[in-house]
Amino acid sequence: MEKGRDMFTGTKLIQQNYVRIFDTTLRDGEQSPGATLTSTEKLEIARNLARLGVDVIEAGFPAASPDDLEGVRRIAIEVGNTAPDEMGLTQLPPVICGLARASKGDIDAAWEAVKNAARPCIHTFLATSPIHMQYKLRMKPDEVIELVRAMVSYAKNLCDNVEFSPEDAGRSEPEFLYKVLGIAIEAGANTLNIPDTVGYTTPDEFGKLISGIITNTPGIEKAVVSVHCHDDLGLATANTLAGIQAGARQAEVTVNGIGERAGNTSLEEIVMALHTRRSFFDLETGIDTTQISRISRMVSNFTGILVQPNKAIVGANAFAHEAGIHQDGMLKNNTTYEIMRPETVGIHRSRLVMGKHSGRHALKVQLAEMGYELGTVELNRTFERYKELADKKKVVTDADLEALVEDQFYQSSELYSLEGLQVVCGTMGMPTATVRLRSPEGDIYEYASIGTGPVHASYQAIDGIINIPNTLVEFSVNAITEGIDALGEVTVRLQSETSEVMERTSPQNGRNYARTFGGYGADTDILVASVKAYLAALNKLLIFTGGRQPSSATLLLETTEKS
Amino acid sequence: MEKGRDMFTGTKLIQQNYVRIFDTTLRDGEQSPGATLTSTEKLEIARNLARLGVDVIEAGFPAASPDDLEGVRRIAIEVGNTAPDEMGLTQLPPVICGLARASKGDIDAAWEAVKNAARPCIHTFLATSPIHMQYKLRMKPDEVIELVRAMVSYAKNLCDNVEFSPEDAGRSEPEFLYKVLGIAIEAGANTLNIPDTVGYTTPDEFGKLISGIITNTPGIEKAVVSVHCHDDLGLATANTLAGIQAGARQAEVTVNGIGERAGNTSLEEIVMALHTRRSFFDLETGIDTTQISRISRMVSNFTGILVQPNKAIVGANAFAHEAGIHQDGMLKNNTTYEIMRPETVGIHRSRLVMGKHSGRHALKVQLAEMGYELGTVELNRTFERYKELADKKKVVTDADLEALVEDQFYQSSELYSLEGLQVVCGTMGMPTATVRLRSPEGDIYEYASIGTGPVHASYQAIDGIINIPNTLVEFSVNAITEGIDALGEVTVRLQSETSEVMERTSPQNGRNYARTFGGYGADTDILVASVKAYLAALNKLLIFTGGRQPSSATLLLETTEKS
Repeated sequence: MEKGRDMFTGTKLIQQNYVRIFDTTLRDGEQSPGATLTSTEKLEIARNLARLGVDVIEAGFPAASPDDLEGVRRIAIEVGNTAPDEMGLTQLPPVICGLARASKGDIDAAWEAVKNAARPCIHTFLATSPIHMQYKLRMKPDEVIELVRAMVSYAKNLCDNVEFSPEDAGRSEPEFLYKVLGIAIEAGANTLNIPDTVGYTTPDEFGKLISGIITNTPGIEKAVVSVHCHDDLGLATANTLAGIQAGARQAEVTVNGIGERAGNTSLEEIVMALHTRRSFFDLETGIDTTQISRISRMVSNFTGILVQPNKAIVGANAFAHEAGIHQDGMLKNNTTYEIMRPETVGIHRSRLVMGKHSGRHALKVQLAEMGYELGTVELNRTFERYKELADKKKVVTDADLEALVEDQFYQSSELYSLEGLQVVCGTMGMPTATVRLRSPEGDIYEYASIGTGPVHASYQAIDGIINIPNTLVEFSVNAITEGIDALGEVTVRLQSETSEVMERTSPQNGRNYARTFGGYGADTDILVASVKAYLAALNKLLIFTGGRQPSSATLLLETTEKS
Repeated sequence: MEKGRDMFTGTKLIQQNYVRIFDTTLRDGEQSPGATLTSTEKLEIARNLARLGVDVIEAGFPAASPDDLEGVRRIAIEVGNTAPDEMGLTQLPPVICGLARASKGDIDAAWEAVKNAARPCIHTFLATSPIHMQYKLRMKPDEVIELVRAMVSYAKNLCDNVEFSPEDAGRSEPEFLYKVLGIAIEAGANTLNIPDTVGYTTPDEFGKLISGIITNTPGIEKAVVSVHCHDDLGLATANTLAGIQAGARQAEVTVNGIGERAGNTSLEEIVMALHTRRSFFDLETGIDTTQISRISRMVSNFTGILVQPNKAIVGANAFAHEAGIHQDGMLKNNTTYEIMRPETVGIHRSRLVMGKHSGRHALKVQLAEMGYELGTVELNRTFERYKELADKKKVVTDADLEALVEDQFYQSSELYSLEGLQVVCGTMGMPTATVRLRSPEGDIYEYASIGTGPVHASYQAIDGIINIPNTLVEFSVNAITEGIDALGEVTVRLQSETSEVMERTSPQNGRNYARTFGGYGADTDILVASVKAYLAALNKLLIFTGGRQPSSATLLLETTEKS
């Protein structure tokens, strides 16, 4: 009975000082440009969100496409029925939530997706601001009220747990908003989520909005008020906290604050503000803070959305003081400049532990300390790659190990895999690359190409074998650790240029937009890492087209040989 | 008389609704790990801060090292005496400020550095929280009061404009704080800057702290209250705005929010919050918002500190909606999802204008529209590189042009320059690079090396010619534009392993720490860009050692030839 999560039924809070964490990384976060995730990646993130201790996982927008529905369904089945026991709490599985516009089709799709979870939830929404009602919905206020009543009731008939959001609440007329929310409660909504859709409000205004709702909405005592903010003016965290201080007891957040435009409220900032300033807020969450750093890296790797070094809590410098100051004598007292310990968010300052002669057991112990429990086969594969790396690098740090594990296991299924790469380039011009790939059928293909640079040449060579027209929308490389012999980490994001299968529907405006696919690769050779990342993204794209190449693609066999 | 800056003397505000922007990118920002800037880069940033319209430029901590003093002095002379006339306002030059600990030596150094500016300012500080007084200063409260009185008076005797900061004010005893601040005003301080040094407070608390100071400090009507926040809990922007709402009329900020740990308050977030929500705050600044995007890129390139895509105002996605939605029909009304126009912060959505056959004049016009006024020689050099790029790339966008200009002009003096590079690498092992460099004396050196990857091999080859032991602390590559034939942008940061010349003093704890040097390069070949970035960082390091290699270094001539 230490923690609050086991004490709330998913529809009502029992402990008044407990704030539910509703994670929407997989829904609102994934909507950000270029963040498309495969079902497998979503599942992996959902598993880790459950371990992290989030109360609700908004797993997607099932009406967007059949793939999206299936992705949510898998999470509902595989994550929504297991209590994350390893946390040592008698916990319930997380609530699995699906988003739906205020229409029967969307609500049916959401129910279909979440119904197999132990604790399903349908989240439906409709805009209530004059500007959205007039320009987007083309509906009169009365029509909006009737649609809310009808759709919340419809959802409630399917599912015990219903959340309703008045979109663009921040710019809605207060009296109208209270009325709509009252109707939603009457119709059965358990949670009322108040979004600042365009990131326009200040903490004062948002706090007052929430107070006003709590004071004036008929029947509000039957529901939990939730807040959902965006960071366009850099105020998402402050607005969310102001909403909580005004009485909201659910915060909708994403890992690393990813999301459209400037993103959503950061999970880590809300959790650590409540944690670090517990004496001020007198509130708690069910989050295991020591998992924050790890899920931050996972989301960054899977989505290809980097975290800047000066990002609060999860940035590379967040816990770093001036470079070069010796740790031991840095400060006479830790708390003179440090308000949080890095260990609290799962950052372990210890660099390296492993040398060239470390054995399999030492590796296993080290990985376990970092939170990776590998089976024998996986451990053997990692050990092999570790030995290769240790041959090249003087010291192997835990960051290197993390990259190795991530490169190996956080990948979508390998349809095409890299068998060989050879590159020649430089200022003399004619950068040339030759690649050798193994196809899903086990055949070996080779292709050579020139390009504007070595990455271009390599990617052109791959395109010569796997012919899927695409546009590279982002490409970035980072060295994981210090030293020029470091591992390089490459993330790419690309968009298909052809298939209609690639499109999905936006919940906000109902339009279709193209999916973007990310890939990740790590190697001491950044060109090898680049090729791995591109292949990972292409494999992901192939999975979305049904596991093989789109019919428009042809294998260019002229210059390849079969083995 | 439209804008406020011309109406305040640098010591007192006349317009009560004007908020001074005090930029500390070059002082507190530059203190962040790896952000070391050369004097030339600092000067260039200072020039652009003046154009941007900041009221005060904190140009450095002159006591840190002779280089730091000289850097501030150059800014005082070259930027502190020119009104940024092109803004069409009868403005004064910006105030140039130097930081000093509460000691005569530091204050003398600060005065020496800023005295040649038209409007100089000395900023001195002393900790006032129990924890800092006890553990860091080892001083009794009475001793602290006497030192503040003595040192503010000492500074005032040198300089008309003095700012005083009680360090860690957020954790100081309120009554003691009021007393110290009253003494500082009595001794002549014109501005009282209240820092939340450790980023610990909430907006409520910080607003109350400022109200309390304004209500209770004796003589407060003679001074301007300033706020200086850190983002450890993601609340820097909200805290700063809360302080301003409580009566502060100066905000201390950095471009992109760079700074130690999670960084300082972002200039762009404060300016755009006040601008976008003018009806709420009823306050104004002297900032030309259309320069924000450009200075953000400049600071990111010079420091090597990346901006994440979901960063408010200046992130790549801040103004992007779902990828693939057609711009024209995206929304029935712009304001349904957009609270700011990208043009307001200087982002021009127009992609591309230039093709392979565009001429010199078209290039000049395009660059001028982007804010770059190049002389004939510079234009010719840029045009040459533009033609080379246009030969390789189908379309050249304004982002490409920006990268070209930045690669060419935003570089420290080239001591060693790249004459040639040849790389062979891939999965077959033995990545090999050959480099050809021109030395400051005009000699040509060549060296070949293998490495763990192509970047390592190239850097080892350079190290074979310019032998300065160093550690690479960061390496990152980004594609500037979409498409795999894009220009790659590389930023590196490295630390010297040897020379004592490299050390500087931290104002907070008085210890020495190693400088870090950043470099930037852009090319369609990421290995060429990597080599350029490394050379730029090494050249910067060489400038700090006095323009040539440190005496410990030797030229390895065995395998090189002189031309």
